[in-house]
Amino acid sequence: MNKRDVYLEDKPLQQALEEYLAHLAGVGGLDPGENEIIPVEEAAGRVTAVPVFARSSSPHYHASAMDGVAVCALDTFGASEATPKLLTMDENAVIVDTGDPIPPGCDAVIMIEDVHFIDEKTFEITSGAVPWQHMREIGEDVVATEMIVPANHRLRSFDLGGILAGGVTEIAVHPKPKVGLMPTGTELVQPGAELKPGDIIEYNTRVLGAMVAEWGGSPQRLEITADNYDALKERLQKAVEECDIVLINAGSSAGREDFTAQLIADLGRVLTHGVAIKPGKPVVLGEIQNKPVVGVPGYPVSAVLAADLFVKPVVYAKLGAVPPQREKSEAIVSRKIVSPMGTEEFIRVKLGKVGEKIVCTPISRGAGVIMSMVRADGMLRVSGLSEGYKAGQAVQVELMRPLEEVNETTVIIGSHDIALDVLANHLRKRFPSATLSSAHVGSLGGLNALKRGEAHCAGTHLLDEETGDYNVSYINRFLAGQSVVLVNLVHREQGLIVAPGNPHQIRGVDDLAAKRLNYVNRQRGAGTRILFDYKLKQNGIAPDVIQGYEREEYTHMAVAAAVASGSADAGMGIRAAALALELDFVPVVEERYDLCILGEYFNTPYIQRLLEVMAEPQFQQDVFSLGGYDLRDCGKIMYESRS
Amino acid sequence: MNKRDVYLEDKPLQQALEEYLAHLAGVGGLDPGENEIIPVEEAAGRVTAVPVFARSSSPHYHASAMDGVAVCALDTFGASEATPKLLTMDENAVIVDTGDPIPPGCDAVIMIEDVHFIDEKTFEITSGAVPWQHMREIGEDVVATEMIVPANHRLRSFDLGGILAGGVTEIAVHPKPKVGLMPTGTELVQPGAELKPGDIIEYNTRVLGAMVAEWGGSPQRLEITADNYDALKERLQKAVEECDIVLINAGSSAGREDFTAQLIADLGRVLTHGVAIKPGKPVVLGEIQNKPVVGVPGYPVSAVLAADLFVKPVVYAKLGAVPPQREKSEAIVSRKIVSPMGTEEFIRVKLGKVGEKIVCTPISRGAGVIMSMVRADGMLRVSGLSEGYKAGQAVQVELMRPLEEVNETTVIIGSHDIALDVLANHLRKRFPSATLSSAHVGSLGGLNALKRGEAHCAGTHLLDEETGDYNVSYINRFLAGQSVVLVNLVHREQGLIVAPGNPHQIRGVDDLAAKRLNYVNRQRGAGTRILFDYKLKQNGIAPDVIQGYEREEYTHMAVAAAVASGSADAGMGIRAAALALELDFVPVVEERYDLCILGEYFNTPYIQRLLEVMAEPQFQQDVFSLGGYDLRDCGKIMYESRS
Repeated sequence: MNKRDVYLEDKPLQQALEEYLAHLAGVGGLDPGENEIIPVEEAAGRVTAVPVFARSSSPHYHASAMDGVAVCALDTFGASEATPKLLTMDENAVIVDTGDPIPPGCDAVIMIEDVHFIDEKTFEITSGAVPWQHMREIGEDVVATEMIVPANHRLRSFDLGGILAGGVTEIAVHPKPKVGLMPTGTELVQPGAELKPGDIIEYNTRVLGAMVAEWGGSPQRLEITADNYDALKERLQKAVEECDIVLINAGSSAGREDFTAQLIADLGRVLTHGVAIKPGKPVVLGEIQNKPVVGVPGYPVSAVLAADLFVKPVVYAKLGAVPPQREKSEAIVSRKIVSPMGTEEFIRVKLGKVGEKIVCTPISRGAGVIMSMVRADGMLRVSGLSEGYKAGQAVQVELMRPLEEVNETTVIIGSHDIALDVLANHLRKRFPSATLSSAHVGSLGGLNALKRGEAHCAGTHLLDEETGDYNVSYINRFLAGQSVVLVNLVHREQGLIVAPGNPHQIRGVDDLAAKRLNYVNRQRGAGTRILFDYKLKQNGIAPDVIQGYEREEYTHMAVAAAVASGSADAGMGIRAAALALELDFVPVVEERYDLCILGEYFNTPYIQRLLEVMAEPQFQQDVFSLGGYDLRDCGKIMYESRS
Repeated sequence: MNKRDVYLEDKPLQQALEEYLAHLAGVGGLDPGENEIIPVEEAAGRVTAVPVFARSSSPHYHASAMDGVAVCALDTFGASEATPKLLTMDENAVIVDTGDPIPPGCDAVIMIEDVHFIDEKTFEITSGAVPWQHMREIGEDVVATEMIVPANHRLRSFDLGGILAGGVTEIAVHPKPKVGLMPTGTELVQPGAELKPGDIIEYNTRVLGAMVAEWGGSPQRLEITADNYDALKERLQKAVEECDIVLINAGSSAGREDFTAQLIADLGRVLTHGVAIKPGKPVVLGEIQNKPVVGVPGYPVSAVLAADLFVKPVVYAKLGAVPPQREKSEAIVSRKIVSPMGTEEFIRVKLGKVGEKIVCTPISRGAGVIMSMVRADGMLRVSGLSEGYKAGQAVQVELMRPLEEVNETTVIIGSHDIALDVLANHLRKRFPSATLSSAHVGSLGGLNALKRGEAHCAGTHLLDEETGDYNVSYINRFLAGQSVVLVNLVHREQGLIVAPGNPHQIRGVDDLAAKRLNYVNRQRGAGTRILFDYKLKQNGIAPDVIQGYEREEYTHMAVAAAVASGSADAGMGIRAAALALELDFVPVVEERYDLCILGEYFNTPYIQRLLEVMAEPQFQQDVFSLGGYDLRDCGKIMYESRS
């Protein structure tokens, strides 16, 4: 056990990728495999294996390009306003619709608009027709034998039209690479299973499968294999025979039961074990029987990243293509980001357009937090040569949502309240192009974000200990000289979130000290923390008497989760958070939670859409039913200051 | 017949669309329909109908975040390099792997790297553990009851991970809108059918089907209905019952058998018939039984555009979303574009990055030319308020290929040769990210394009009548002072393309005049035209003696197609074009076809990739086998000039 190989390589990303692709190319591991012949009408999104040549021309006959009358141009020469010419139907003129063949003897079409009927059979024209006018000649669109699309071309919807127009009904495309997804681990259970401690829901191969399908591959999800070397080896051997590419998830690190690298080495060859990226470091790049085999790390964000960086280029290469680059956008970093030298870090960020600039705010950096991907609008790469960014620095961000969605996002930074989730949901239902993006940095953090121009508004519930009023004195202090509008969202109950049945019989903050209970606090600058400090002071309790005072969480739900898990006996938060996790709640105070809106954005859709939704009875009802909320002032302007 | 309603409305695009969506919204025609419950693992790309809330937390137990040793932090206090502490396995320490549950009594994890084993059971630590270090608490990722994604959210691959992590296995999504595609027209035949004059291959509904699928709808292609009013009415009625949206293709104009508008009016309501766009004007926006019914024009480019402009927003609206915007790029217009006032025109363009700017060159503007979509890299909108653009003007172009592909495109503007198609195909096979984009404007046009900095190179075969040499004297005249490299692509036979069997017994250009035959010419500035003029002069023939001298085509294949169709008796062109259409060929001269390369690009991948491909034996073989080519100098530098 003490001889475990606990260190991985730290190969630079670009080197690892280039070496891997070069090795695979050398052994034929990137070859597309035998062409597949498919009907053209099923070929959208597929990639041509050989060029497609037209079999017939389009049009394949001289056709009328207009609704009108087909004539012989010679018969029309000399016609003018002064000297109109008469033509007779079926004698020297034939009615044609768009697409009709030009009758023999005719070589021009006169538009129906330019024809003046004298009677049923006779009509007058007042200008001559030029030969071939308003006609579509044979081959105008497609000429037989011409190349319609080259090889290695990903077919778009309208390409199918060009190919079918050229008389081709079946084409040769590259086969979709079969990607075997092999979930391994004794701890894995299928989604929907009853969960015991230690069980992990096997969702990575579902995510990987969706990614593979998106790239144009064919995912083959395999059964879960337990951490048994021989069973794993047998399963892997079979997977390599059945598939073109195999991903083993996970066991790719250097732990006791991390067999992946050894398995690949045993059956084939390991090119790289460990890449200098974060998350995603413990990736294994290997090859068995000339086929790419990748050990994908188990943490979900690592898995997504490793697949995106190393498997996507392989799938695309087998389709004769290179992966499309994600759309990028310049953004301004909202706060300092520190990142280790020597490691390329991938930081998930929230994005929003505030004023003229796009602001980028990092979210959780844990490799285990898949929600950091779900919540992200973009990915910020910090090169291994950089130690990070300063607040206010301009960076390039890869977009995970379309830029126009980012541009339609209302950015709220500040205190967290569950009512914001309800607001986000109602907003999107009412305005499908709109998004509410909230980052939780506490009330003071929110006011500071407004000051720096990083948000349209901030959620804030800052109690002025002297006046007993909320927010106004803080705004006058922190946003002096700026025009802001303060609009109430809710009044809400704050109190102590405690275990079900309140086993420690907590009645107030004084019991925390008296009973030496474990507390879980909110972060510095959070209104709830200020409230807690105020209550401590009222009770004459010094903060360092409270066990766990220094343990900080960023949201009400995180505090409730800490209590639910038993790691804390109490934490201050809103009633709705306690109710959501079926915990008990000891009310302490009713407080006011407002939206502090920068005046310059008040009359923009970013804010007016929110106010419209806040006025909806259904929104108010949904918030009310969370418990602990009073919406008597929802949407009401509480204060205005002008610059 | 003379009472036909030959005029359509000319409603501005924005007005037509807004009125249509407003009307549909009013009658419930944009409602998504009943939710569909589907397994999460099949939900990528689908749109949530209601928000998804977590059922369980993730992790649902306190888990180790590292491979290491779980301890009670209290037991480790005071450990340092000077005063290491000893811990004993299974007594006050337990080995854990990443993801393992933390055993009761433990509240911290020490990384395996920081543990120094003394023997099998005992290890030493040299620093204390902070409570909760290297642990993943319950709910670190997902907290039970929290909203994972809102309603109206299009699910990405990793969203599935967040949802499954939250213990949810099935979700409610909006149903895919069923879009009935109803091909109409007596002239339509299925792809693959034997073609008679007047037959039109029914490919529009295949293209529309692929588009609908791309947007997230479910295409339902119906059988072809002939132009019979009662049959159409019956079919339409049934389609409206079976589908959520119906597209009728075509009959949307005002011709004799254009029944679509009347059919919709008969069964429901026509909102708009005729929109001020080009192509796509004769579109019908209607509603039957509160369902959207659109008459889509028959010309393929019109059909694609009308569907993109009017059907896509409807499909997205039914999915609670707005269509994503196409990525845009600024580009420089390479030549003057004239567009009618009052009509919004959609011009397909070729794009390429030449130097620092992206150059945009319009291609065919015919609504019937689907190949104009296949060949396009982008779409240039010319507003109804504009008369067009001047050469050199900056415009915004909607991209139809990713920008990085455009950036990797070698732009060749100039004379046309079929060998360029072969080159394009081999280039893409060898360099999957590279594209060769050729625009055919004749040899002189190509040199002018180089002069204006709109291309990397030009295909040119300009004969100097005095020296008998090719290209050099023209380069010295048109590109004086510029650094260029002239590289040979092929030597090729030029001659007269004539009908099979050469029925008019043509032996040379003098026969064209003598026998008063119909000629088809190339456009002004084409090397082939210059060659023809030279031959006329040699034979003492005045151009105006040649019938059809003023009829201009832009490519060898178009000339061959004119001969094949019988609309011309002869045209000058290369042997390969004659062979491709199984025509006869009367050789006139062997000429040199070179690539004239701007010196500044010679050492860039744009050109070096081409030269690499030109050196491939397989490329040379493929060109040779087209017939009429000699590759003795392929890739050889024929001339260099320095600035």
